[in-house]
Amino acid sequence: MPKSRNIYLDYTASISANPSSVHMLGVKAKTKLQNARKEVAVILRARPEEIIFTSGGTESNNLAIQGVVFSTWELGSQEGAELPKIPHIITTNIEHPSVLETFKMLRKKKLAEISIVPVEKNGIIDVKKIKKEIKGNTILVSVMYANNEIGTIQPIREIAKEIRHYKKGKHSFKKLCFPVFHTDAVQAVNYLDLNVEKLGVDLLSLSGSKIEGAGRVGILYKKKSVPLAAIFGGGDQEMGFRPGTENLPEILKFSKALNLVQKNKEKESRRLTQLRNYFIIKLTSQKNNFFGPRVALIKSEGLNQTLKNYSSASLIINGDLENRLPNIINVTFPKIPSDLLVMELSANGIMTSSKSACKSSQKGGSYVIKAIRPESDVEIGGLRFSLGRQTTKTDIDYTSKILSKILLKLKKWYN
Amino acid sequence: MPKSRNIYLDYTASISANPSSVHMLGVKAKTKLQNARKEVAVILRARPEEIIFTSGGTESNNLAIQGVVFSTWELGSQEGAELPKIPHIITTNIEHPSVLETFKMLRKKKLAEISIVPVEKNGIIDVKKIKKEIKGNTILVSVMYANNEIGTIQPIREIAKEIRHYKKGKHSFKKLCFPVFHTDAVQAVNYLDLNVEKLGVDLLSLSGSKIEGAGRVGILYKKKSVPLAAIFGGGDQEMGFRPGTENLPEILKFSKALNLVQKNKEKESRRLTQLRNYFIIKLTSQKNNFFGPRVALIKSEGLNQTLKNYSSASLIINGDLENRLPNIINVTFPKIPSDLLVMELSANGIMTSSKSACKSSQKGGSYVIKAIRPESDVEIGGLRFSLGRQTTKTDIDYTSKILSKILLKLKKWYN
Repeated sequence: MPKSRNIYLDYTASISANPSSVHMLGVKAKTKLQNARKEVAVILRARPEEIIFTSGGTESNNLAIQGVVFSTWELGSQEGAELPKIPHIITTNIEHPSVLETFKMLRKKKLAEISIVPVEKNGIIDVKKIKKEIKGNTILVSVMYANNEIGTIQPIREIAKEIRHYKKGKHSFKKLCFPVFHTDAVQAVNYLDLNVEKLGVDLLSLSGSKIEGAGRVGILYKKKSVPLAAIFGGGDQEMGFRPGTENLPEILKFSKALNLVQKNKEKESRRLTQLRNYFIIKLTSQKNNFFGPRVALIKSEGLNQTLKNYSSASLIINGDLENRLPNIINVTFPKIPSDLLVMELSANGIMTSSKSACKSSQKGGSYVIKAIRPESDVEIGGLRFSLGRQTTKTDIDYTSKILSKILLKLKKWYN
Repeated sequence: MPKSRNIYLDYTASISANPSSVHMLGVKAKTKLQNARKEVAVILRARPEEIIFTSGGTESNNLAIQGVVFSTWELGSQEGAELPKIPHIITTNIEHPSVLETFKMLRKKKLAEISIVPVEKNGIIDVKKIKKEIKGNTILVSVMYANNEIGTIQPIREIAKEIRHYKKGKHSFKKLCFPVFHTDAVQAVNYLDLNVEKLGVDLLSLSGSKIEGAGRVGILYKKKSVPLAAIFGGGDQEMGFRPGTENLPEILKFSKALNLVQKNKEKESRRLTQLRNYFIIKLTSQKNNFFGPRVALIKSEGLNQTLKNYSSASLIINGDLENRLPNIINVTFPKIPSDLLVMELSANGIMTSSKSACKSSQKGGSYVIKAIRPESDVEIGGLRFSLGRQTTKTDIDYTSKILSKILLKLKKWYN
């Protein structure tokens, strides 16, 4: 029998090699895992040990928020730590459900006091309003990098600056680095700068499900000095912050795909910005036989018509037009429920959405649209087109054409 | 342009179709997801809505334990519910870290009072000892189906019977179905009966990473009547119990692989039991030039020599020999650290382990071996061989031969 053959008698650890196993195949798997961690760290300008692999964006956001809240329970028992009985955490009203619902869950369980700061009409948070909420027992501020429904980009660097400034003041938590700053960068990953130092964030979440070719895993960047408690009890994986056998095959896909996205970021952002603007011009042009010139926009960015009076508009483009992702267009046709448009477009082979898929089973419209236009009919909502790697000009032309036909058909009913 | 083409403008929901999206591709994905859920339900004799997909075994165990504990917080605010201020939960001292550490975490956070019941010397829990711990504020009992290190099978049906009996008595929680009974069936999946009705369990965890060809997902079976709170805040996926985009590709692999395993269960169990016994006989035979007849076993099961005096044994087979999984053999060579044997075997291409991979980064030996032989040297531990689908008689012959050589080499140093 040749000595070089491998006999696998570690089925109980895992069907294929487990990176935490001590034997040769385990060590090989561990090396691959650590290389993937390094690759991700290089892209974020972080240290490898600051990258925690999770099961996805929802878990990353939960780990960040619950992890910081629970860390204060552990720190509370340390000598000299002056910690509040109930910690205070701050977020905005257009965060992804995995942030917003986690905040509400912590409030319901009386584990945290929460502040939900409303964004402005353009879907962007006013930094001063965040600053105003920070107080003695504030341990966390969580603001998303870019919104998943309307694509608006938040002033992360500016918020980070305010938090740094606050920490420099005389506060009892100074030594404990509170408040820490978390950003959900799940939607930003393909187009925006992920340099955590430049952004000034302490925690940053990413999800593989939003990156072409990446596996179904997520990451949480955690600055070394930031206190964090695991939310799962279990093994020692991921530096103790995330127990459970590492999903190595998907992690390897993730690091590879993130690298690729990083390389194409500028070029792809330019391409999609052009395509998006082309789509907006098509939607708002006078030639379009339905909408006409009655378009409501927050900012014009070289487009011809602007109408700030929503009540008389026949088309509203939701969210700031300058500070937004290259790939998202969200429009409202007053009186026409966006859910209906999603169905009609789907029947024509065009896949769009009217709100976060994570909240699709709930009745009622998008809470994000409600947040930026509280006076609007919640059932009308917004229709989201989100573009990606495979999207072409031909797709946009076809979509515009079909949308016009659908609107013309529905016009008779909604007038 | 043909009407039949699909244009995907929902990249923000997910790169590929998201089962929670409302459009056509989302609906197709949802159908696949629900079919997978049905297939798993049929195998467990459960209803589809009782199957919750998670990221793996660790998450399933955490969801079961933390989910039941936190459910009492929600129930506590309901009218008429008489709930304890601090709930009490019971487990054993040889559970997987994802159960044991979760219990300790809940105790540390003062969210639960815990009882950790020690198993007997044969690695099996005494049902009477569990029964004795159940009291007025007990809301959960969690006992693993089969142990991951020594392979012993716990008397799940008997424990379930005791809990049912307790509930029938006069207790204020009767209407709330407490205590609920959870079993971690991660290691049992390939060989034991998973019929939840026969087992009498309310919650049961499985992991794809222990099933050949299954994806990196887990499931938690949750009996419909059992109260459970989600541990993540987020979307509405998985009936609200597990937010986050469903890992559809891996879920489909899981249901397919579970089906296959179910079909081959009896045949494969017989094959591995024979192979395991063949290995034990080889290890304990007089022909073996190292071990000789000084073997300590708890039960003999047709093997020739039994010696209950551990101190004079040269080989100890850990765990009950009758009530154990077909695929696990765990042995201790007194004076020889099992970690060293893992390394030596690995250098010869044989992959084994000395403790749970989940705890491999920690110093010190196996807590499971410590639990069944508290008097033993913790650094010596146990050497685990776990067999699987690819394991052959030739592998066992080769492994026995190499192990003899290694032991002969090490004998000089450890005497």
